[in-house]
Amino acid sequence: MAPNPDWVKALKPSGPQGSELLQAERAKSNVAVEKLTELLFTREIIERKHRILEILKNEKVFDKSQNYFAGRIDRFETALARAKTLANIKAKHNWTLEDYRTASELISEPGPYGLHDSMFLITLREQGTPEQHELYLKKAEKYEIIGCYAQTELGHGSNVRGLETTATWNSADKTFTIHSPYLTASKWWIGSLGRTANHAVVMAQLVIDGKSYGPHPFVVQIRDLKTHKPLENVHVGDIGPKFGYNTMDNGFLLFNKVKVPHNSMLARFSRVDPQTGKYVRQGSPSLIYGTLTWVRSTIVMQAGGVLARGVTIATRYSAIRRQFQDRDAPETETTENPVLNYTMVQVRLLPLLAATFALHFTGKAMMNLYAENQKIMSQSAADSSQRGTGPEETRSGSDLLADLHATSCGLKALASTTAAEGLEVCRRACGGHGYSSFSGIGTWYADYLPTTTWEGDNYMLTQQVARYLLKSARHVLSGKPPNNNTTTILSTFLSRSDMGAAFDVLGSDSDLVSAFAWRTAFLTFEAAKHRDEQKKPWNDLLVDFYRLSKAHSQYLVVKSFYEALESDETKTKVDEPTLKLLKKLFRLYAMHTLEQEGSEFFASGAVTVRQITLARTVAVMKLLKEIRPHAVRLVDAWDFDDWLLDSSLGRSDGKVYEDMFYRASELNPLNEVVVDPYPGSKVLFKEDPRRSKL
Amino acid sequence: MAPNPDWVKALKPSGPQGSELLQAERAKSNVAVEKLTELLFTREIIERKHRILEILKNEKVFDKSQNYFAGRIDRFETALARAKTLANIKAKHNWTLEDYRTASELISEPGPYGLHDSMFLITLREQGTPEQHELYLKKAEKYEIIGCYAQTELGHGSNVRGLETTATWNSADKTFTIHSPYLTASKWWIGSLGRTANHAVVMAQLVIDGKSYGPHPFVVQIRDLKTHKPLENVHVGDIGPKFGYNTMDNGFLLFNKVKVPHNSMLARFSRVDPQTGKYVRQGSPSLIYGTLTWVRSTIVMQAGGVLARGVTIATRYSAIRRQFQDRDAPETETTENPVLNYTMVQVRLLPLLAATFALHFTGKAMMNLYAENQKIMSQSAADSSQRGTGPEETRSGSDLLADLHATSCGLKALASTTAAEGLEVCRRACGGHGYSSFSGIGTWYADYLPTTTWEGDNYMLTQQVARYLLKSARHVLSGKPPNNNTTTILSTFLSRSDMGAAFDVLGSDSDLVSAFAWRTAFLTFEAAKHRDEQKKPWNDLLVDFYRLSKAHSQYLVVKSFYEALESDETKTKVDEPTLKLLKKLFRLYAMHTLEQEGSEFFASGAVTVRQITLARTVAVMKLLKEIRPHAVRLVDAWDFDDWLLDSSLGRSDGKVYEDMFYRASELNPLNEVVVDPYPGSKVLFKEDPRRSKL
Repeated sequence: MAPNPDWVKALKPSGPQGSELLQAERAKSNVAVEKLTELLFTREIIERKHRILEILKNEKVFDKSQNYFAGRIDRFETALARAKTLANIKAKHNWTLEDYRTASELISEPGPYGLHDSMFLITLREQGTPEQHELYLKKAEKYEIIGCYAQTELGHGSNVRGLETTATWNSADKTFTIHSPYLTASKWWIGSLGRTANHAVVMAQLVIDGKSYGPHPFVVQIRDLKTHKPLENVHVGDIGPKFGYNTMDNGFLLFNKVKVPHNSMLARFSRVDPQTGKYVRQGSPSLIYGTLTWVRSTIVMQAGGVLARGVTIATRYSAIRRQFQDRDAPETETTENPVLNYTMVQVRLLPLLAATFALHFTGKAMMNLYAENQKIMSQSAADSSQRGTGPEETRSGSDLLADLHATSCGLKALASTTAAEGLEVCRRACGGHGYSSFSGIGTWYADYLPTTTWEGDNYMLTQQVARYLLKSARHVLSGKPPNNNTTTILSTFLSRSDMGAAFDVLGSDSDLVSAFAWRTAFLTFEAAKHRDEQKKPWNDLLVDFYRLSKAHSQYLVVKSFYEALESDETKTKVDEPTLKLLKKLFRLYAMHTLEQEGSEFFASGAVTVRQITLARTVAVMKLLKEIRPHAVRLVDAWDFDDWLLDSSLGRSDGKVYEDMFYRASELNPLNEVVVDPYPGSKVLFKEDPRRSKL
Repeated sequence: MAPNPDWVKALKPSGPQGSELLQAERAKSNVAVEKLTELLFTREIIERKHRILEILKNEKVFDKSQNYFAGRIDRFETALARAKTLANIKAKHNWTLEDYRTASELISEPGPYGLHDSMFLITLREQGTPEQHELYLKKAEKYEIIGCYAQTELGHGSNVRGLETTATWNSADKTFTIHSPYLTASKWWIGSLGRTANHAVVMAQLVIDGKSYGPHPFVVQIRDLKTHKPLENVHVGDIGPKFGYNTMDNGFLLFNKVKVPHNSMLARFSRVDPQTGKYVRQGSPSLIYGTLTWVRSTIVMQAGGVLARGVTIATRYSAIRRQFQDRDAPETETTENPVLNYTMVQVRLLPLLAATFALHFTGKAMMNLYAENQKIMSQSAADSSQRGTGPEETRSGSDLLADLHATSCGLKALASTTAAEGLEVCRRACGGHGYSSFSGIGTWYADYLPTTTWEGDNYMLTQQVARYLLKSARHVLSGKPPNNNTTTILSTFLSRSDMGAAFDVLGSDSDLVSAFAWRTAFLTFEAAKHRDEQKKPWNDLLVDFYRLSKAHSQYLVVKSFYEALESDETKTKVDEPTLKLLKKLFRLYAMHTLEQEGSEFFASGAVTVRQITLARTVAVMKLLKEIRPHAVRLVDAWDFDDWLLDSSLGRSDGKVYEDMFYRASELNPLNEVVVDPYPGSKVLFKEDPRRSKL
């Protein structure tokens, strides 16, 4: 559209400017922003980010200014162009995997190479033999073949054992026949498959002599390497638009008895002996079990940052957006109040601000624990192989792994739900403008939502946590529990069963943590009673299990946050006032959660009704007031570049209204369309051959 | 893309077909679907809907099959074409306003005539003089001019008094100068303004002789009637993409000292005397106050239907989608369980199913109350004018109106929040496929979200409810309360202050209602104590007020639902078993709410902790089990046509997977794009002049 006329260009927002308001916010707080940033990320990671950001900003293809306007096809094509450019830059600058991941985070949109770069390469690497690495992995690493990971089907997601695609062994010519016997066998939701990939790791039921051996991975070529057309008897395409994630070509895939050679089956852990046609299992895929735990741990840590983007945007904008005078102010008062001064806004945003730190430190703790466990396991594996002893020696490692596995399930569910739902709270806290794409929250939220479903559906996962806690309870009741944190809190609860609890939740931080542990233990033994004594059906207990998993995970977050702030590392890295403020955030997170889940805490006997009432009406309100002046500096510590946020409302310089107006009036392609507005005129509707017949 | 090959066409979903599963669901329930539908809507409304549906289905422009694929510009152009066609059909078939609204509901997308048809016409009609009706309204009704309602600004939403656009009276030439002194004065979010309207009702601060008289409505032409280009010194355009609502051209609008004639100011209630330049107020705009109440009441009633679409889709799909065997089933069991059998799915969906009916009956009751009040008011107005007495005579009408006003604020907030958040719960209950646009929930949810902000922001509104309840409490404490339901429940509470409560919430439905009333009264007097005795700042009480408003509104919903089921109308319209089932839905809604808000109920002394525990672990679980077999028939009673739902997952014939596959493989334009997948190839990125300079 035509550029804005001069009289428009001359206009400014009324009243104090956004930049002045943010400046004032920053001036009234003494939070050591840079130190806090370093505590969160380390200096190395921060420097890497800034280095890579400069490279990306200088490539036109990464310019984000049309992202919010473009339609699906445009967005996908641009995303593919970006993926290619990134692959080239990676090669040119000799980037590490960490560099590459950092770049993807800064670009902040799912890309068509996404599943090639992750699950395709990982699966080839972890489940392929050296021969298969030569055959597939090397080419994949050089992008000579582009792949994806085809597991989920139209009719089957979480229940992997129910997959319908078959891979039938043909002993005559030593091949497998990949086949989709039903429509529901169609692979579905497969990232990078729709338009991009020419290979797929296909999970299919292995069938030998009419007997099924469960799902196994097969590398299958699906498109021609030159024409990119689907191969014969392969039906493949994009599954259509989604609530978000539209830069990704999630695809469908059907096979009509397609033959693939013997080496298609990834054979590190199991294979079909080509001579005898016998199924052979070799080695243990427990490493993969570990990988899943690692992936979930990263989701927990990322959840803090994911949510922090929304909190940053909403907090900055709430410091600039003014609405109404304070009701108790004198009538002469005409200046409107920044909405961040209203307790109704604070109570929505500040507990989420606290949650960003809580989740970050929790994820970090889990990843440390995971690394520690890997060390123990490889150490004891080495020891036992030296001494020639069996696998029992690795017990302490696998005990820890079982605990870590359950922990990662529950925390993944809690963290991703907190982040997803928290982002929507942030969007609404921005009032009407939160609904504009330029808020930068909507797209981010919509793209993040699948995280609540993948790597284990958040509702399904809670059953695994409950199962583990039930098992731990039985161990404790039997008197011979393994030694870990879970059994410790259960034992403590039991040992005090004839004394009850007396936690000073309002006066002592460690008592606050203990109250959360108490509630977990109480709910665990309740669940054990229902299941083991009263023999209630599993299905009737799912809601209880869900609550139990949530309670346990909240305990773990509170505990991790507490321990992170008590650690020497933290104490040396940030100054005293900042540490004190972080402790207030800890208390806000814990107290707000306690108050929200008041019934459970009360029922467990961990606290009195009076304590819950005080938590809500006194403690939380007081913390909100104390944290409020530091809100802008606290979100600054997350160190999001404006280029990454791509948000009018969240601009670090406070030029909210200027940016909204610029995008609407100068970047918006709809404003090039001139319509005839009258119903009497020829209707503008264009015939479209894609429309279905009526 | 190429049609599906024959081998694909031959494929069917595995196992029992969706159509068989839904048939079985319907066979095992005896709910009188048609009677229930009639109870909800009346036969007349149902017949109207089906009549209009037939007309729409036969017009190609209304075909929905590309809706989920089209980009913003396409979607807007199609929506305008639809709006025009609808205007022509309306004229041709001589449709009533009700017919027209029904058609819009069936089309289910915001259209570019939306604000012309509603606020533009209503404002002209209600606030214009007969002369102005002649000048503007008649043309607008014939679509000779197309208008919008320009109130909200870039910097001001809820606080209408803070608007910055000015209309300055020029006594010399008897004109007004409309001006935007700041960038934040730009009108923003104005529906139908971006590309469509050539006129706007502009709310501007009336200034006479340097004195401001507050916001007033002015009719201003903004675009040329022939070329559709903006007039001189008018800057207007579309504000860009949003989280939803993208078929609507929400616009911005700036004026650079634009002169408009004296008759531009809508002058029914106030005007500038052109001779003296004096401001004259005439008549009372209380009618408009009433209109807002009416609009909010319709939002409450519609919220039931809005939510019911999501519940219908999720319930039907959950009866078809099967996942895992029951954990307690024998190992030989291979058939997977429909997910609707899992209590974790039931506890998410069935309380929402109950809420659809609860909100519907509540809205209906409010609209009846509103009509009754209008009758009283016009009757007593007529009486008093006959007798020549003053306006005090209409007291009983205005008392009722004040009660109704507060009620409508609280219920609007509760109902629209319940519907919006409930839809997202439904979407997630559909698992992975809920994320596909073809689920039909995502777009519907995204388009509905602004309802939580407009006609009063849901958080702001709760202050009005609290203010009214505080006033009522003071009346009651003073001993001279007006006689209405609010003062009755407050008085009852006070009268039992030395006896406490003993509500048999698990055994008696009317006691259940009373427990909700008790909680409202308790929270009201607590708030009064904080504000009036302890003199707490208003700002410190906002969170309490929010809870109070929610509690009161939940009470009103529970009460309305209860009364609707006790009414003679209901008893004569549905048979005994259906009525019994509706009462179970009432109990599920009430009991589930009570359990969710357990702390408050307990703190108020309305119930014991034991009762809350029993509500959760026994009563709710039992109700889920009893309602489960009837779920599909209950959603059938909402009578949504498949054309309206536009959902693969919610199809009434159960052909879920066939429809998903059809849309993905045959309607999806992205599948026409063939890419070069290798990073070494020429990057596909197209230069775009709209991209901002780097």
